[in-house]
Amino acid sequence: MTTEAAYSELERRCREIHLLGSTAGLLAWDQETMMPPGGAEQRSGQLALLARLTHEQFTSPRIGELLARCESEAKLTADPLSPPAVNLREWRYAYDRATKLPPALVEEFARVTSKAKEAWKAARKAKDFGTFRPSLEQTIALNRRRAECWGWADGGEPWDALADGYEPGMTAASVLAVFGPLRERLVALIGRIAEARRRPSDRFRRLHLPAAQQRAFVQFVSESIGFDYRRGRLDESAHPFCSGSHPGDIRMTTRFHEDNVNDALGSTMHESGHGIYNQGLPVEHNGTPRGRSVSLAIHESQSRTWENQVGRSREFWRWCHPHLANFFGDAVAGFGEQEVYESANMVEPSLIRVEADEATYNLHIMIRFELERAIVRGDLAAADLPGEWNARYRDYLGVEVPDDAVGCMQDIHWSMGAMGYFPTYTLGNLYAAQFFEAAAAAIGDLPARIAAGDFAALKKWLNANIHAHGQRYRSADLCRVVTGKPLDAEPLMRHLEGKFGPLYGL
Amino acid sequence: MTTEAAYSELERRCREIHLLGSTAGLLAWDQETMMPPGGAEQRSGQLALLARLTHEQFTSPRIGELLARCESEAKLTADPLSPPAVNLREWRYAYDRATKLPPALVEEFARVTSKAKEAWKAARKAKDFGTFRPSLEQTIALNRRRAECWGWADGGEPWDALADGYEPGMTAASVLAVFGPLRERLVALIGRIAEARRRPSDRFRRLHLPAAQQRAFVQFVSESIGFDYRRGRLDESAHPFCSGSHPGDIRMTTRFHEDNVNDALGSTMHESGHGIYNQGLPVEHNGTPRGRSVSLAIHESQSRTWENQVGRSREFWRWCHPHLANFFGDAVAGFGEQEVYESANMVEPSLIRVEADEATYNLHIMIRFELERAIVRGDLAAADLPGEWNARYRDYLGVEVPDDAVGCMQDIHWSMGAMGYFPTYTLGNLYAAQFFEAAAAAIGDLPARIAAGDFAALKKWLNANIHAHGQRYRSADLCRVVTGKPLDAEPLMRHLEGKFGPLYGL
Repeated sequence: MTTEAAYSELERRCREIHLLGSTAGLLAWDQETMMPPGGAEQRSGQLALLARLTHEQFTSPRIGELLARCESEAKLTADPLSPPAVNLREWRYAYDRATKLPPALVEEFARVTSKAKEAWKAARKAKDFGTFRPSLEQTIALNRRRAECWGWADGGEPWDALADGYEPGMTAASVLAVFGPLRERLVALIGRIAEARRRPSDRFRRLHLPAAQQRAFVQFVSESIGFDYRRGRLDESAHPFCSGSHPGDIRMTTRFHEDNVNDALGSTMHESGHGIYNQGLPVEHNGTPRGRSVSLAIHESQSRTWENQVGRSREFWRWCHPHLANFFGDAVAGFGEQEVYESANMVEPSLIRVEADEATYNLHIMIRFELERAIVRGDLAAADLPGEWNARYRDYLGVEVPDDAVGCMQDIHWSMGAMGYFPTYTLGNLYAAQFFEAAAAAIGDLPARIAAGDFAALKKWLNANIHAHGQRYRSADLCRVVTGKPLDAEPLMRHLEGKFGPLYGL
Repeated sequence: MTTEAAYSELERRCREIHLLGSTAGLLAWDQETMMPPGGAEQRSGQLALLARLTHEQFTSPRIGELLARCESEAKLTADPLSPPAVNLREWRYAYDRATKLPPALVEEFARVTSKAKEAWKAARKAKDFGTFRPSLEQTIALNRRRAECWGWADGGEPWDALADGYEPGMTAASVLAVFGPLRERLVALIGRIAEARRRPSDRFRRLHLPAAQQRAFVQFVSESIGFDYRRGRLDESAHPFCSGSHPGDIRMTTRFHEDNVNDALGSTMHESGHGIYNQGLPVEHNGTPRGRSVSLAIHESQSRTWENQVGRSREFWRWCHPHLANFFGDAVAGFGEQEVYESANMVEPSLIRVEADEATYNLHIMIRFELERAIVRGDLAAADLPGEWNARYRDYLGVEVPDDAVGCMQDIHWSMGAMGYFPTYTLGNLYAAQFFEAAAAAIGDLPARIAAGDFAALKKWLNANIHAHGQRYRSADLCRVVTGKPLDAEPLMRHLEGKFGPLYGL
């Protein structure tokens, strides 16, 4: 068999596995948006079958043979940025990760986390951490075993092995390097905001605005910033998300609270950022790593760019403010540009991560990172989690946790066995700020363009500098290529301090 | 391997194939209702892959081995109505049909009909049968080859082999036996209607009623007759359909013409009939023949029961009429019960099958049956199709065909290679009438119940006598079991003559 034939068979097989996986993606979307309650039983059977088939096909010995055959030929990987080299690098990475786990452990992990998720639901409802603890302990033990199978670099730690599955290349040490300085400055900023005498107005946010009007408004905004509705949809779900594994068909969702239009707007711009990334991936490479998004953190950087860097900026509201009356009529009469801008920028230390503002959000993440790292290292027992959680919320955010349902049991992640995931959210915020500075430097008059409703220049820059690469670079390298520097807390802090300073009269 | 183990493995494999097929079903639903235009490319790849996987899995030698092993043990099939016996009978039937075709012929048929469909679209648009003819000729030749592979009974003909795939057991002779007397009486009835001096009023049908109001109305009606929205949905599509392969999740669609509320109502009741059948199948047998609907004709009998036997009856409109104002307000003021009932029962010989009324519809089908049978026998050349088509429309329906786009090219079926399909529509109408007479005899006060809006008795009767059986009986046997007689044209003609006699003053 020639190397060309081996590569061609490998690519065909992997594209088929992707296609089968994309089917599961559509079923999952349907489950959250369209499926009637009676469909749950069949749907779980369909998804389990598709997961099994894709796993079986990707871990088959034939994939291993083809990979080895392709890797033996230097010319395929001579240029490490060529599509075959990128694809072989990432297929190898995924194949090794998938085959290093013994099937019995995969099966046990699925069984235990499925039960843990149910236990978590019940415990959270009853505000009783004690009934969740045994499941959490099992999940931790299994995660340690998974980490042992995957292994980690010298000088590293087991958490790295888990985190690598969410963000290839991420280690506790690399996270600490940026989170350390970030935490210090964030805690200081939030402290000054808490003591500030000037408070922005949140009147606009508290307006009662009908869901149907909100819907037309957020669809208009998402279309204006560049989400292409010929290649996607916007629907509703309890938890907004964006899915879709082909640039021609991206499904995103939002939600409507009639007493908080900023929630729907923020969610929609966030998901539109994910959607614009997915729509911008190179379609000719669809189904291979070269056509896939880099990582969770880079995906989050795209959603945060549009949600925060754009959507909470003074310039965005300069453009948006005159449009409000078209959707909400007299209800928004009397609200000036400054007041709607302020309403999108309230900072308020709070208990719940998913409701947190742009500034305090990252402290929620850091608390989780510190605790899960200690848990995986064995420095923190599951039984001591609530106490440590509550102490950190007091220290970093100045809030008291009344019970564990709104404390250490608020998120689903750990119950699903996902440890090493949380930092990708804050890494996304950091990348967003650093990329945005690079975009602004390249575009020159970016603020003026945003204020004029011209979002095309930013989208074009993101298309060319982030999206078009697919997985050509891993996240840390992409950051260096795009911004000339490694990831750093400075741009995010400049962004936050530059905005909240004037708003809170610091 | 024990027979039990063989049966159990066979069942597991077949249930998985069904589950994979159900995934394709959801993708097809999504394509018609939700998918943005940009999704077309990926979707065709997904559906082709799923079709290939399900075909490969079902035609694998392992299925043949397991079938043979199970069939060798008399106790599994001792009771021919037991679930294992029914399943083995139908799996064998499907396995033989699927494996009798050489893969090269399957592939050629898919390729040719895919092109023929495109040629048909273009030719219909251009009203030019000549450009479709070569594709049609290829399709006919391939269908003859397929028929040769499948074979037919002594005394039968090639058309039987094709038809058997749509309606197991159906032959040209069995169709002729009921269509012959039906045609004679139908042509006579329609002739008398055409000459009648009394014309029912169609004023109600021509009212302009907003789509949103129509939507609320038809959803109310479908729920009232028994479609369970916790186990299904109603959406919109260009061509109404009902899909879903699990009783817990049935997806149906309708459409709205603002100048014809009867169209949306008829479509919705029709699809609700399919939906109520699907929701009534035994869920414990889902994924096996024992849990599957009998055939296309029996499915059509369920949709026609609710659309015609119920939805165009005087009793239905007695119940429905007072509700109209709740949905349409003043627009329906002044319309009496008799007038809305009449509006649902206009008979008008016309060119287009899918727009035809309850009486003339069956003549459209007979014309297609006679022509496709002659084509497959080789008695009619493709080139002579338009002339024969137009002559029959003149003879049976008294209408002149102005061009082939509204003549012999109006339906998609032949272009897709589907020959032997059309008669199932009229068989459905015949079964509906015969079943409905049996239901009325069993229930006693069925008309009074319908007039009172109590549709539960009929639904319960259909659940118990048709739906619960799954594929326990094939259609002809089911008819004998349920009604005590073989299928016969009498009940349908009684229904039509009994209704249209008074309406047209015959």
